[in-house]
Amino acid sequence: MTTIDKFLREHASRFEAELCDFLRIPSVSAKSECRQEMVRAAEWLRRKFQSIGLRAEILLPKSKPDAHPLVYAQSSPVIPEAPTVLVYGHYDVQPAEPLEAWETPPFEPSRRDGFIYARGASDDKGQLLTHVFSTEAWLAVRGSLPINLKFVIEGEEEIGSAGLAALLQEEPERFACDCVVISDTAQFGPGQPAITYAQRGIVYFQLDLEGPHSDLHSGTYGGAVSNPANVLTRMLGAIVDERGRVKVPGFYDDVKPISEEERSMLGLLSFDEDKFFEEIGVSGGSGESGFTVLERLWTRPSFDISGLSSGYQGEGAKTIIPRSASAKFSFRLVPDQDPGKIVQAVKSYLEPMCPPGIRMKLTVLAQCRAFALPIRSPWIDAARRAIEEGFGCPPVFIRAGGSIPIVSALHRALGAYILLVGWGQETDNAHGPNERFSLVDFHRGIRTSSRLWDELSRVKRG
Amino acid sequence: MTTIDKFLREHASRFEAELCDFLRIPSVSAKSECRQEMVRAAEWLRRKFQSIGLRAEILLPKSKPDAHPLVYAQSSPVIPEAPTVLVYGHYDVQPAEPLEAWETPPFEPSRRDGFIYARGASDDKGQLLTHVFSTEAWLAVRGSLPINLKFVIEGEEEIGSAGLAALLQEEPERFACDCVVISDTAQFGPGQPAITYAQRGIVYFQLDLEGPHSDLHSGTYGGAVSNPANVLTRMLGAIVDERGRVKVPGFYDDVKPISEEERSMLGLLSFDEDKFFEEIGVSGGSGESGFTVLERLWTRPSFDISGLSSGYQGEGAKTIIPRSASAKFSFRLVPDQDPGKIVQAVKSYLEPMCPPGIRMKLTVLAQCRAFALPIRSPWIDAARRAIEEGFGCPPVFIRAGGSIPIVSALHRALGAYILLVGWGQETDNAHGPNERFSLVDFHRGIRTSSRLWDELSRVKRG
Repeated sequence: MTTIDKFLREHASRFEAELCDFLRIPSVSAKSECRQEMVRAAEWLRRKFQSIGLRAEILLPKSKPDAHPLVYAQSSPVIPEAPTVLVYGHYDVQPAEPLEAWETPPFEPSRRDGFIYARGASDDKGQLLTHVFSTEAWLAVRGSLPINLKFVIEGEEEIGSAGLAALLQEEPERFACDCVVISDTAQFGPGQPAITYAQRGIVYFQLDLEGPHSDLHSGTYGGAVSNPANVLTRMLGAIVDERGRVKVPGFYDDVKPISEEERSMLGLLSFDEDKFFEEIGVSGGSGESGFTVLERLWTRPSFDISGLSSGYQGEGAKTIIPRSASAKFSFRLVPDQDPGKIVQAVKSYLEPMCPPGIRMKLTVLAQCRAFALPIRSPWIDAARRAIEEGFGCPPVFIRAGGSIPIVSALHRALGAYILLVGWGQETDNAHGPNERFSLVDFHRGIRTSSRLWDELSRVKRG
Repeated sequence: MTTIDKFLREHASRFEAELCDFLRIPSVSAKSECRQEMVRAAEWLRRKFQSIGLRAEILLPKSKPDAHPLVYAQSSPVIPEAPTVLVYGHYDVQPAEPLEAWETPPFEPSRRDGFIYARGASDDKGQLLTHVFSTEAWLAVRGSLPINLKFVIEGEEEIGSAGLAALLQEEPERFACDCVVISDTAQFGPGQPAITYAQRGIVYFQLDLEGPHSDLHSGTYGGAVSNPANVLTRMLGAIVDERGRVKVPGFYDDVKPISEEERSMLGLLSFDEDKFFEEIGVSGGSGESGFTVLERLWTRPSFDISGLSSGYQGEGAKTIIPRSASAKFSFRLVPDQDPGKIVQAVKSYLEPMCPPGIRMKLTVLAQCRAFALPIRSPWIDAARRAIEEGFGCPPVFIRAGGSIPIVSALHRALGAYILLVGWGQETDNAHGPNERFSLVDFHRGIRTSSRLWDELSRVKRG
């Protein structure tokens, strides 16, 4: 690997410059005015793939021709005996607002204190490019890869991945592989690279309650008219008890405790609960009793309201019964919980609480299953060896509290092992202002990726 | 009274035009950006009083120099043997939001179907002007009034009347009177003028919960971090049970049942519960069991949330734990309930529900006692005769579910009888969009007021 390492060293600053070029494209998938920028970002990637020697093309699903373009690339010729690896990533980014909170503009990458600051630096442009540059090194130095490599980079991860989901239905054979590699997660901490083997799922609801046809005077009508805001708080206030346990009947039916072995493993992770709360500015937390903070975050389901809206929200007092009340809330799920079953349970729990005079609408905005992969696996072993070489230390094995819905979809559609090897940090501000990516982690990621192609080539297929 | 009636007829359309001028001033007391408009509205009134021949001035309480200006006017010279009557009203209005729900802009008065539509048309600009125009008629036609008449029109009724309350302490002699006349309530129904002898009180709270220093990803943090929106719904959802009964310990300690005699009287009022709900656009209502709708509205305490605000309220899903959550809510009180005691009870009930990681702030934005006056009184008799002449039918005697906090204060500070003679309708949308005032009621109100000065002049003082 010496010659590959030499190439990586010699081209390190060009890799950074190319990352900056890529970050300058404001590819915000949620904004319709960024449509042309999405095409520019996809086209930038397609050309990059082509320039390093892969066959590359832009894809659009037949059933969703308005989707943001997907970029597909693959190595050739096919090596029959070698495993096929699919790298997944996304070139779309979160909106950068609030802009005034950025120290330097979100789409003008700035190098400070060993980081590159820009929207998308960590999530996911910087991380996905590590695999592109490692592939470039292999092809430049060796002329070929030791595995069959495919890339699919989508532009809709931040808005639900509908295009890729459609494409997985339309052309499953295109994506057929033995293993999927994804770098869109974080290390456990600085210098603590991680392999993520489980993620929680989610069901996200919008609840709308409509009462009288307009706001009413609370003096004139209070006491006899059903108040949508009263009902909303009564419904949502009844979902978890004061110890954080969900009271929806049947909610825990499919929740299995984790094994004692895994519990011990999680207990060995160096995690400072006081520091965790201090970093987010609170004196302490609350949650399901009988579990550590990490167990609550990773292995237990949770309930969180993300938005409440009703009536008068301005300064001072307004004495009304509001005409309506709305909430956005979600349940994080653990493996074996069926999102559809949870939707039904929540519906059946809330509907009887709706009194005469209130019309209730419960909408599911998103849902995704949790998954947990076996840790004993040759793919994991390969990734561990690659990380040991690339980062100089062994990875820890972690779960994630969040969900990348497309990961569940890829897992179910392709039946392949999913390797979540993230080079980012939780402190990268992935969805907030001043997003950043450590340059040290960027180059370690490229190096690890170059080892990964080698290690994965030795895994016996099937 | 023929010459006065002639004057009222001849000037009817000018009165409407002047009302429209007054309604064009957006005197929203709750909004700090309306400060100059408050001054404009007060100045408009002061000039009006002066132009009809009263001595008028702008007042500011010494202890609250930042209060919205009060307008004071009085007739001269003093007639020693005649009773002194104080007319109270308010020129401030509720916020007009949501603006998009108005058919015509709230501060551009529009005449449609016999109504004037504008914020403040009924509450209270249109109603208070009836007494100004009747006084104008007396002074123009007769050259003097048969009573000693004082006016105090404040600009803080919708935000708690702190300025007038202070002024009542500072200069009680200025407001000394035998009877207070207030038109800021409603008739019992179209063509059913009413004298209101009781009102509920109120305690209005703002609850603010602060959690982490910024919004957090609900996947990464959900389950271990106290969510301010979760806590808010748990607190507020625990205040009333599904049958509308307040669960705060001690809340009903001072609530007394009304007499069987009064219950029978209320039962005789023609009140159609189905029509009541139909008019506000709902199929039915809910509330404390064992009481009729009117009893719930007038004689029982109630709890209503008027505003909820937290996290993401835009389109679609955003997976956050919001950094804060806020609510505005109030309890309507009945006679003998002490607002201070209720504040303490609510505080003691909610505070233990606040978990680690949440900072709670409970602010009282307004409070006022309920009151009930004796129905047998010479002032009531005078008002009944004036109403019979002005409206062509006798008034009914009713309670009100709402509260004019300053009415309790006036009652307690001046020891005078309070005559609540309202020309409005419950369907005027006093605090909602498309507020309106019937032009027929407006002119009947002016005519009744002109009779009232005459009838009140015959009441034996003391």
